[in-house]
Amino acid sequence: MNSIGVGLLGFGTVGSGTAKILVENQEVIASRLGRPLELKRIADLDITTDRGVKVDGRILTTDAADVIDAPDIDIVIELIGGYEPAKGFLLRAIDQGKHVVTANKALLASDGWEIFEAATKKGVDVGFEASVGGGIPLIQSIKEGLVANRIQGLFGILNGTANFILTKMTDETGSFADVLKEAQDLGYAELDPTFDVEGIDAAHKLTILLSIAYGIPIDFDAVYTEGISRITPLDIRFMKSFGYRIKLLAISKDDGKAIEARVHPTLIPENSLLASVNQAYNALYVTGDAVGNVMFYGPGAGMMPTGSAVVSDVVNVARNIISGAVGRVPALGYQPATMQARRIKSMDDLAVKYYFRFSAEDRPGVLSRISGILGKHEISIQSVHQQGRDVLGAVPIVMITHEAREAAVRQALSEIDRLDIVKDRTMLIRIEDWK
Amino acid sequence: MNSIGVGLLGFGTVGSGTAKILVENQEVIASRLGRPLELKRIADLDITTDRGVKVDGRILTTDAADVIDAPDIDIVIELIGGYEPAKGFLLRAIDQGKHVVTANKALLASDGWEIFEAATKKGVDVGFEASVGGGIPLIQSIKEGLVANRIQGLFGILNGTANFILTKMTDETGSFADVLKEAQDLGYAELDPTFDVEGIDAAHKLTILLSIAYGIPIDFDAVYTEGISRITPLDIRFMKSFGYRIKLLAISKDDGKAIEARVHPTLIPENSLLASVNQAYNALYVTGDAVGNVMFYGPGAGMMPTGSAVVSDVVNVARNIISGAVGRVPALGYQPATMQARRIKSMDDLAVKYYFRFSAEDRPGVLSRISGILGKHEISIQSVHQQGRDVLGAVPIVMITHEAREAAVRQALSEIDRLDIVKDRTMLIRIEDWK
Repeated sequence: MNSIGVGLLGFGTVGSGTAKILVENQEVIASRLGRPLELKRIADLDITTDRGVKVDGRILTTDAADVIDAPDIDIVIELIGGYEPAKGFLLRAIDQGKHVVTANKALLASDGWEIFEAATKKGVDVGFEASVGGGIPLIQSIKEGLVANRIQGLFGILNGTANFILTKMTDETGSFADVLKEAQDLGYAELDPTFDVEGIDAAHKLTILLSIAYGIPIDFDAVYTEGISRITPLDIRFMKSFGYRIKLLAISKDDGKAIEARVHPTLIPENSLLASVNQAYNALYVTGDAVGNVMFYGPGAGMMPTGSAVVSDVVNVARNIISGAVGRVPALGYQPATMQARRIKSMDDLAVKYYFRFSAEDRPGVLSRISGILGKHEISIQSVHQQGRDVLGAVPIVMITHEAREAAVRQALSEIDRLDIVKDRTMLIRIEDWK
Repeated sequence: MNSIGVGLLGFGTVGSGTAKILVENQEVIASRLGRPLELKRIADLDITTDRGVKVDGRILTTDAADVIDAPDIDIVIELIGGYEPAKGFLLRAIDQGKHVVTANKALLASDGWEIFEAATKKGVDVGFEASVGGGIPLIQSIKEGLVANRIQGLFGILNGTANFILTKMTDETGSFADVLKEAQDLGYAELDPTFDVEGIDAAHKLTILLSIAYGIPIDFDAVYTEGISRITPLDIRFMKSFGYRIKLLAISKDDGKAIEARVHPTLIPENSLLASVNQAYNALYVTGDAVGNVMFYGPGAGMMPTGSAVVSDVVNVARNIISGAVGRVPALGYQPATMQARRIKSMDDLAVKYYFRFSAEDRPGVLSRISGILGKHEISIQSVHQQGRDVLGAVPIVMITHEAREAAVRQALSEIDRLDIVKDRTMLIRIEDWK
């Protein structure tokens, strides 16, 4: 039986996992697919380091063209990451009529539209299951499993590094800097952790999800992004006392008029299912108008889990090749002609509950002045805590508000932060109080 | 653009949900599929009751043949449930060259093989996403999303009724009978709850999962099945004190030599993710050799959630029709020629931890006699509780064992239950102590 030829660009962590699966699980994959997948060539700048994968040394090359231009390769997997040369390689492979599979969320979130258009024009498939949620099959589940639904909400823990850090801070009360250092030592965080801890990686992933959930064009700039680096052990302690856990959540809601699209630290009830998603695990909670609430959980990164998702895409494309059904499911789940931009809700119009931590002088009348300003802006308080009077020379006053408009909140905090009795910028964390 | 013709057999709860989705979400489905799905006809014995679904009265019929034999219908959805006439209708539709979609787990678990063979022979597709886990897209996720994996384990909460009852018993300490009554009043349990509370429904679903996970023929008799009707509030109280929650779990493990296949009440750690799956929700925890652990969570039953899964199958089949790719993914995930029976591990060979509750007389030496018999059978005790001396005139002695062989446990319990100091049959609950 004719095998399906597969070529790999990038022999790093995920590339090695992908190759390992293609080699070691070849038999079980063939018994499902009906034909063997054959890993024909791997291109990487470094072809001497041993990755612990049993591949014939002769299939290794330092020249990407040996993969992209090879007539015996049907599917090109791009696992280089980053913008260039990954993008150029993908477009060239597409131009050569190759189907492509990628895990490159940063590239898709910025230039995905161009890549998908090129693929549609050329009549080739693009798989990107591994770009969001690592090994969790959530892209296909949204595009196909929930195809009968109007999607109404997405709540995702989409960055394993940030979740690992917040879990550690919650369980062991370390500072952000200390825990980040530990995560770096353990290999859970990169030397430059900006994309992970500042929410950018999660925003890339949410950008892709928004497109497949709502049929809107890819638009990274529409996503509000805020990271976790300002969270303190003090905040963790207070939010626990209020019955909350903190997660870096990627959130979207569609009320039919506008779409919310935001990534930020978020307090969620400690007994909610997402609060139990800890360590480097990822999860996506989806609300559909027919199905209600479903959740997908699993490893959001790593050599073998991400490889699992990459290979599932390869098999998916291979099935299309075998049955002559290329383009069977549109790359973003919607027919391109039906996709159109929707209004993205401004953060000013957001209405949620808030957690505030004020750093105020320990004087009579402080709470009254703060709550006076909040009241003026129609922000009503659900509960207040004053604790630990000896922290940093100032009194932390902690509040949970009722639902309030973000524009009002920003105005109120800017007034409050200018008060002479307020010693530091007020900490604001949004709350999602569902279930 | 040509629409895809859809016919529905059975206009009950799930049938109504399916029709509602096909009508109300027609536009969003078409924007994904590229063509409209058109609900051409609905057959049910009762076509007069208002289901709250806006369908033209002229498409209703009491004659199933009007659906099965109609030339304008491409896909027949069977939502009658049970064995006959559902099976006959399905086979006749297949024989007419119609693709079929069903949610009928009882039928598939017994006669699925025959139905899949008929469909393969006739070259039509069979969709059954809704047969396991209601609205959760888990069949496709295992068949396609985890296609790169050798599946190593399945842990499922697959029956919403049983989960609802156990959740209530855990949160509110009612007896099984009282809570069952309540569940019946709320419509969560049927008048004859046998299939749900005795684990039969969960075993039907596990039977289907085993086949798609391991590529083995459908064999309901291979699944050990035990229900929840013997669980008492006393057991719930004790297991909570040991840090466990109780779930009716469908469990399978593949150690490479044999496959475990069992449905029974199971104690799991209270802080595990599955322990947080409460009420009528379902979840499936899957371990794959590449991906590690993933979990799928959502509503396991209900009009709209199950309808969501049914319609996802219809769209999937419609995509195959449109792109000429019928049979693109084998019904059970494996190429039929590669499927073969595997050894199912006998329950005697099971090795797990156990919870025992002995009902013994309140006399000195009782614990020593019981533990003597356990020791003789090489069952070692991890912890013992003796509490509540006034219950039913006997002392409940509760134990957690270390891992023991089930054959030894059965022998030991049969000896213990014959002791004059033991007043009632010993309660045995298996423990899965992961993570």
